[in-house]
Parts: sequence; structure tokens; C-alpha cells
Amino acid sequence: LGKLPTALTRYQAEIDAELRSVLVDRSSLLYDMIRYHFGWIDEKGNPQKGWAGKAVRPTLCLLACEAVGGDWHDALPAAAAIELVHNYSLVHDDIQDDDRERRHRPTVWSIWGKPQGINAGSAMRMLANVAIRRLVIPHTKQVHIQSLLDEATIHLIEGQYFDINYEKRLDITSKEYLQMVGGKTAALIACALEVGAEIGTGDRQAIDGLRQFGWNLGITFQTRDDYLGIWGRPENTGKSLWGDIKRRKKTLPVVYGMENASGDMKQNLIRFYSDGVLAEETAASVVGILEAVGAREHTAIMTGHYASEAKGILTNLPISRSAMQDFNQILHFIVERDF
Amino acid sequence: LGKLPTALTRYQAEIDAELRSVLVDRSSLLYDMIRYHFGWIDEKGNPQKGWAGKAVRPTLCLLACEAVGGDWHDALPAAAAIELVHNYSLVHDDIQDDDRERRHRPTVWSIWGKPQGINAGSAMRMLANVAIRRLVIPHTKQVHIQSLLDEATIHLIEGQYFDINYEKRLDITSKEYLQMVGGKTAALIACALEVGAEIGTGDRQAIDGLRQFGWNLGITFQTRDDYLGIWGRPENTGKSLWGDIKRRKKTLPVVYGMENASGDMKQNLIRFYSDGVLAEETAASVVGILEAVGAREHTAIMTGHYASEAKGILTNLPISRSAMQDFNQILHFIVERDF
Repeated sequence: LGKLPTALTRYQAEIDAELRSVLVDRSSLLYDMIRYHFGWIDEKGNPQKGWAGKAVRPTLCLLACEAVGGDWHDALPAAAAIELVHNYSLVHDDIQDDDRERRHRPTVWSIWGKPQGINAGSAMRMLANVAIRRLVIPHTKQVHIQSLLDEATIHLIEGQYFDINYEKRLDITSKEYLQMVGGKTAALIACALEVGAEIGTGDRQAIDGLRQFGWNLGITFQTRDDYLGIWGRPENTGKSLWGDIKRRKKTLPVVYGMENASGDMKQNLIRFYSDGVLAEETAASVVGILEAVGAREHTAIMTGHYASEAKGILTNLPISRSAMQDFNQILHFIVERDF
Repeated sequence: LGKLPTALTRYQAEIDAELRSVLVDRSSLLYDMIRYHFGWIDEKGNPQKGWAGKAVRPTLCLLACEAVGGDWHDALPAAAAIELVHNYSLVHDDIQDDDRERRHRPTVWSIWGKPQGINAGSAMRMLANVAIRRLVIPHTKQVHIQSLLDEATIHLIEGQYFDINYEKRLDITSKEYLQMVGGKTAALIACALEVGAEIGTGDRQAIDGLRQFGWNLGITFQTRDDYLGIWGRPENTGKSLWGDIKRRKKTLPVVYGMENASGDMKQNLIRFYSDGVLAEETAASVVGILEAVGAREHTAIMTGHYASEAKGILTNLPISRSAMQDFNQILHFIVERDF
């Protein structure tokens, strides 16, 4: 495994403490499912070492606050809210995608069933609003930040809608792909940065710039994720081998492959993806075709492209030198990570 | 079918128009699932006559605003939000309970599948927040109303959690029953009245009184619903015959029956409810036992009890005479309805 940038570990203890404190008075078993998801307890309720997620989104929120001259402690409730929204979407995605494992552990629904899994996810989304109300800021700003969180969530849901909808389609364009991952991934990362900046400053230019940086960072993140979903090692990523292909997900390599394959390869791709289920063998053939038409290279190039866009925006941002360094490190980590 | 009180039809056109306007700029198929749920279009997208729900909750919200001296038009966005929260919970409940029909039509998930059904419901919950931001009120009040809506939603989710959790249990007490239906039903009805009152006045006593009236009205509503779920006519209620029993729901008659049956009847009840599935014949036997131990009467008595509590609170409220009359009519309707 690669090394995490220092910025990604710097706030982890405080983010974790803030998340725990949002749940502290909530004692029913409903909330134990959430505690389990975060890794604070095992499925029987015994305390666990805790969650070792990368906490990318909440960290970006705190960094953005600091970058524009704010005190990052002020943004902790917002960081917790962002992480709750992200994890709400993971809990529901696992149900929707029938995924039994996440972070090398059984998913919430695979233990408590899908009906209760839906409740756990929904409660997390509501707790994000509870967290937001812990911010000590004027009510006008509170309303604005709540609206940013809601809009990001709407984008998440729309992205998830497209993701499922595209499973049955073979004609997804690059533009449709961007619409999907813009919703599924970029919107919440952009929101994390925008909200952090909003808490730290009134400077509209800095806020907008950080949001745009976040959007490009998000697409960079997702294209790399798509790459790792096919060419990463399952023992590093914690995801099943070729799971994205077997579930007929229209990730970037597949979209590119469908658009650029011709002749027999095109016919084979269409035939493979028209079947109800994609077996291990078929998935291997798909990977072969994708490599042959250059989808692997193209995906890496697109990651580089969006990283470069992000970097361009970052360089011109009116933010502190140390924040610039942190963001740069995170950007490089996202591009080069193998997990 | 019984006749609806005039108050329940008075605002229906405006509530419907407000709901439609919340969705007006949302054009993807994700939102068509919501339009379908409300009955504005059929599953192919063709316009339909529209939704013929009772709109109890949004009407109560508008009435509460008027009752305390406000202009009900001001509360329309809140009424729409309340109805969106209610219908969000219905869409998810249908998924969780595996229900294929609602309001004599196929449920959202039974047409588009459970994964997309989850997205439709989640989007509705977020649109409720969008609706709330259309209120023309000070931001401090906006934040407060948002928090009331969030807390009511948390109660809904907790109630749904208990509801599913109780399916496997045979020892549910009356207190646990109240905790469940307090969350599933009373919380949102109380919230509807409180929010409407908040928009119309700053009089804390009136606001609190209306919330308490709403809570009792909600329990009245639910106990009557439980009654109709066993002794109502499916062609009136739109629900399947003995569906609650077959799904081992711990409704009030069943909780009372379990607590009060003895000897063979108790043994039989336990045996029936310990099986995985309750067949039609078994359900008929359950109904026989419930009637024999007086669960039917008890349920009717409890409806009367909570209606009387609601009435007592209502009588002492500092509200207009016409509002008092409307609330009384709705209360009587809820007690006597057979659909």
C-alpha cells in the first residue's frame, strides 16, 4: 500500500471524535448499525479499533476552511456531516449493488438485511443535518450550507440513478459518463471544499475556486477508481476482482471500449454485455478487449487530464502556501494510489 | 366510502400545485418515478388525472397556520415538504415490506426495481428540504423548521426500524407498540401541525398545544388503521386482506392479543407467529383468536381514548372557532373512516 499524505492523517482523530459525538445520545439498535459501519463496534456490539477509512472528504473540508484563513476546528461539524452523507450513500449503494463486502468487512445489509440497511443509511443522511446544526455560524450561512449539502445529495442520488440505469445500456457516451460520475463522486467532493471555504471566509472567488478544484479532483479520483476497479489488486482495493465488469458498470474503460472497439471486438463486447450475468471468464475476455483498444491507457490519460485541470485551478487560488502544499500532495496521492 | 370532511378537500388543488412546482425543473427519469408515485403520470409518462390521496398531513399544516392567525398560503411550501416526507417514507416502506400495490396501483419499486425505488424515495426526502427553502420567513425560523422536519424524519426511520424489528418478536408490549407508532405515524402528524403553527405565530403555547393535539391525532389515526388492516374491507382500504397479519406486523390488536390470550389460544398464536410465513388460513385463525380475546373491542376503545385526549387538548387551544370546527371534523373522520 502507498503512503497516505500527511494531511489525510492530520485530522483523523478529530473527525472521528466529532462523528462519534453526533451519535452519542442515540442508543437504539438502529444506531448500532451505523456504529458498525464506521467500524466502532463489531456486529455483536463489542468495541472495535475503529474505522480506518481515508476520510478524504472531511479532510478536504477542514483544509479548505484553513486554506482561506479560517480555523479548521470551526468546520468540524461540517466535516462530520460530509462524511455522514458519503457513508449514507455507501450503505445504500451496497444494497442497490448487492455488495456483501466493503472495507474487508460484511456490509450492513448483509448482516441485518436490506430493509434495516435502508433505515441505517437514511438515518445517517438525517444525522448529517443534525451535525450541520452544530456549526456555530449565523443562521443565514447555516441555511446556505444546508442547501449545499442537500444539492450535493441530490446529485449523489441522480448519479446513482444513472449508474444503475446505465447497467442495461450499451451506448453510454463520454458525456453521459461524466454526468454520472459528476453526480456520484465529484459533487460531494466539490461540496466538501465549498462548505469548508464558506465557513472560513466570505471571499466568493476563493470559495468558487475551491469548489471547481474539488470537482476536478473528484473526476480525477473516480477515473482512478475505475482504473483500479479493473487493473488494481483486490487485496489492496478491498474490492472483488473485476466486480465492476461483472455488474456491467459503465466505468470509463468500458465506455471508451464500447465507443472505440470495432469489428469482432465490438461484436464480442456487445454480446458479453447483453447477457444477464458476466462470468469470470467472460470478464477476462472483456479486459483483454479493453486493453487491445487502448482503454487502459485512455483511462490513465484522463486521470492525468483532470488532475492537470485541478492543478491549474489550484495554482491560481488565493490560499496559504501550506494549504497549497497539502492540496498538491492529496492530488498526487489520488492520481498514484493503488488502493 | 365515507365522505371526506370539507377541510380535507379545501386545499387539495393548491397543495397539488405546490408539489408539482417543486418538481417542475427536474426532468430526468429519476423524477418521473416520483411523478408516477403521486399519480401525475402513468408508468410510460402519459399524464394522469392525478393523485387522489387524502392529503391529511399537508392539510393539517395549513389549518394550523390559519388556526393561529396566519395566512395559510405562507405555509404551502411547508405543507408540500410534509407531504414529500410522508411519501418518501411510503416509497421506502413498500420496498422494505415487499408491497407491490398502493392506492390500487403498482408501487414504484414493482415497476422500476428496488434499487431505483430507493433512489426515488431518497430524492423525495431531499426535495422536501428544497420545498422548505421556498418559505418566505426569517432564516432563524427556517433553521428551526428544518430541524423539526429532520427530527420527524428521524422518528419515522426509528419507527420503521422498530416495525421491522418487531416482526420477529412475540413479546411486544403496549409501550413498545406506542414507541413504534409514535415514530411511524404520530411524529410527522405532530410535526405538520407544529410547523404550520410556527409559520403563523410566535405564540409558544399555541404551537406546543397544536403539536400535542397532532401527536394524539396521529395515534388515533394509527390505531384506526390497525383496526381497518384486519376488519376493514380491502376494496375500501386499498390494502390486501389481512396483509398486516401475514407479514407478522405487531399492530395493536395483535399486541393486545399476545398480551391477553391464555391457554390454547396463546399457544396457537405463538405457534402461528413462529412460522416463517402466515398463510391465508392461519391468518383467519389468528383473527378468530384476536376476536375471542377482545382485541377488536380493545382497539376500538383505544382509538376512542386517543381521540378523546386529542379533543381535550383541542378544546383548550387559543385558536379560531372555524379552525376548531375543522379540526373536530377531521378528528371525527379519522375515528369513523372505513378507508
